[in-house]
Amino acid sequence: MTTSYKPFESITTVACISVGTIGAGWAAYFLARGFRVQAWDPAPGAEARLRALVDAAWPALTELGLAPGADKNNFSVSTDLAEAVAGVGFVQESAPEDLELKRKLLADIDAVTAEDVVIASSTSGYAMTEMATAAATPARLVVGHPFNPPYLIPLVEVVGGEATAAAAVEWASGWYDFIGKSVITMDHEVPGFIANRLQEALWREALHMINAGEATVEQIDRSITDGPGLRWPIQGPMVTFHLAGGQGGMAHMLDHFGPSLKSPWTRLDAPELTDELRNAVVAGVDEAEPRSVDELIAERDAAIIAIQKAVAQVRTNSR
Amino acid sequence: MTTSYKPFESITTVACISVGTIGAGWAAYFLARGFRVQAWDPAPGAEARLRALVDAAWPALTELGLAPGADKNNFSVSTDLAEAVAGVGFVQESAPEDLELKRKLLADIDAVTAEDVVIASSTSGYAMTEMATAAATPARLVVGHPFNPPYLIPLVEVVGGEATAAAAVEWASGWYDFIGKSVITMDHEVPGFIANRLQEALWREALHMINAGEATVEQIDRSITDGPGLRWPIQGPMVTFHLAGGQGGMAHMLDHFGPSLKSPWTRLDAPELTDELRNAVVAGVDEAEPRSVDELIAERDAAIIAIQKAVAQVRTNSR
Repeated sequence: MTTSYKPFESITTVACISVGTIGAGWAAYFLARGFRVQAWDPAPGAEARLRALVDAAWPALTELGLAPGADKNNFSVSTDLAEAVAGVGFVQESAPEDLELKRKLLADIDAVTAEDVVIASSTSGYAMTEMATAAATPARLVVGHPFNPPYLIPLVEVVGGEATAAAAVEWASGWYDFIGKSVITMDHEVPGFIANRLQEALWREALHMINAGEATVEQIDRSITDGPGLRWPIQGPMVTFHLAGGQGGMAHMLDHFGPSLKSPWTRLDAPELTDELRNAVVAGVDEAEPRSVDELIAERDAAIIAIQKAVAQVRTNSR
Repeated sequence: MTTSYKPFESITTVACISVGTIGAGWAAYFLARGFRVQAWDPAPGAEARLRALVDAAWPALTELGLAPGADKNNFSVSTDLAEAVAGVGFVQESAPEDLELKRKLLADIDAVTAEDVVIASSTSGYAMTEMATAAATPARLVVGHPFNPPYLIPLVEVVGGEATAAAAVEWASGWYDFIGKSVITMDHEVPGFIANRLQEALWREALHMINAGEATVEQIDRSITDGPGLRWPIQGPMVTFHLAGGQGGMAHMLDHFGPSLKSPWTRLDAPELTDELRNAVVAGVDEAEPRSVDELIAERDAAIIAIQKAVAQVRTNSR
C-alpha cells in the first residue's frame, strides 16, 4: 500500500513536538507563515518559554514579511501527544539529542498521528535508520535538519532512513520548499549531513590552533568575520575557490593548487579535549565577547536579516 | 642599530610590486585611501590591466567612501624597480607564488628601497623566513597577507620571519590598521596563517564529500550560503558555538558536545586529487554557476559591500 501524504495547500495546522530552542524556533517560523501550531512539551514552564521565544523572534519575522493571517498567539501547548497531533498536516519533532528518548518519542508520535501525515525530526546527530527502530510506521519518518535559529536560517537538510519511503522524503522536501525554506535533499544518510560536516571541519582546525597557541579565540573569529565570512553569504566555498582560479576558474585552481591539498595546512586528527584546552576555549570566548548570550542572539538575528536582505537585493540587481 | 620606520602620517606614496589580481586590488585600495601608487610590473599590458581593475573596483570603493583627494588615476606603472620604489613610504609585493621568484624579487626590492621603508609580501603560501634568505636587510621584510579582493575584504594577517625585526612587524600592523584594515598580528609563522587554514579545512571536507558522492557542488555551496554562512559575517565560528551552548555558552557546549569531536564527522586525510575528482569538481562548478567569472566578481563585490554595511549598521544599533 502506498500512502498519499497531504496536499501542501490543505495544511493549516502543524505540530511542534518539544519546544526547546530549536522546536520553539520552528514554532515561530510556522506561526509567521500563517499556520496554527500545536506544541507538545512536558517540561514545566514550556508554554511561557515558547511564548517568550516567539515574542523575541516576532519583530524579525515581521520585518522579513508575515504570511496573511499570521498570528503569534495562534498556538497551544499540551502535555498530551494525541492532543498535539490531532488534525495536523505535519509534525516537526525537536526533542533533546538522546537516541533512546527520540526512538521512544518518534514511536509514540507515530502511534497517535494520522497515517497521511509526515513526521520529521530536527536531529543534528542521529540517522533516521537508528531512530525509527521502535516505530510502527517508519516509512513516514524523515530527518528535516534546520539551522539555528530555524525561524531565520533558510537551510533544511532532508534525508530518510533505510525504512523511510522515497515518497515521504520527496513530500518533506516539497513541503519545506513550499513554506519558504532552502532544501537540500540527501539520497543517503551521512553523519552530520552536509553543512555541519563543513562547520565541524573548520571548528576542529580552530581548536587545534588554540591548542597549539597559534591563534586566540578573538583572532579566529575575526579572521572569519572580517575575511572569508564576508563572501560566504553570497558565494559558497566552491564558487569562492572557482574565483580564486582567476579567469581559468576551478579548473585552473585545481590544476595549480591541487598539490597543496597535500600540504600540512591542517591537522589530520581531532585534538584531545583536555581540561586545559576546554578552559582556554571557554576563557577565550569570555574575553573575546563579554556580552550576554541574549544580547548576542539579538545582534545575530538582526544581522542575519540585514545580510539576507542585502544579498537578495544584490542578486536581484545582478541577474 | 635600530632603524626607525616612517611615521604613518608622513606617507603619501606607496609601491605595489607586481599588479596581478592581488597587487592591482591593493593598488585600488591605496588609491581609494588617497595615496599615490607607483606600480612595478614587467608583464606586457600590465598598465591596461591595472587600469581596468581599478576602474572596475572604483564604484564599490566610492560607495564605501573615498579618502579626501583620492584619485583613481594617481598611479604610474614602471618596469624599473628603483623607479617604482623611489620616494615611497611602504612597499607591498604581490608577485606570483613562486619561492625562487619571490626570494630574488624581495632581495632586489630591498636593494633599491630606502632603509626606513617596510616591505610587505602578500604571499599566502610562504614563510618570510624562507623568502628573505637572499635579502641584505631581512629585518624590514614582513608578510602582510590580504584576502581577495584586497580592496574590499578588511582582513590582513601580519607575521615576520626569523630575521624580521619586531619593530617592523609592529610597524606593519600599525600601518595596515592606520589605512583601515582589520589586522591580525601573529607572533610566529604558521603555514596558511589563520583564515586560510580554516578555509582549507572546510574545503578539504567539501572535496571528500564530492569524492564520496555525498554532496554536489551546488549543495555544498548552498549549505553554506543559506546556512552557517549567514552567521559568519557577524559571528565567527567560536561565538557561533558559544551560542550553540544556549545560556550555558561555550562551557556547556564543550562539556556537552566535546565527545563528538571524536566522532567520524570529518575524514582524517586529504582526498587524492584524481583526474576523476578534479573533473567532477570542475563540471560541478560549471553546472552550479553558469555565469562568467566577471559577472560573479561583480556580484560578489556588491554583496561584500552590502553585507559590510548591513553588519556595521547592526553593530552600531546593538551596542
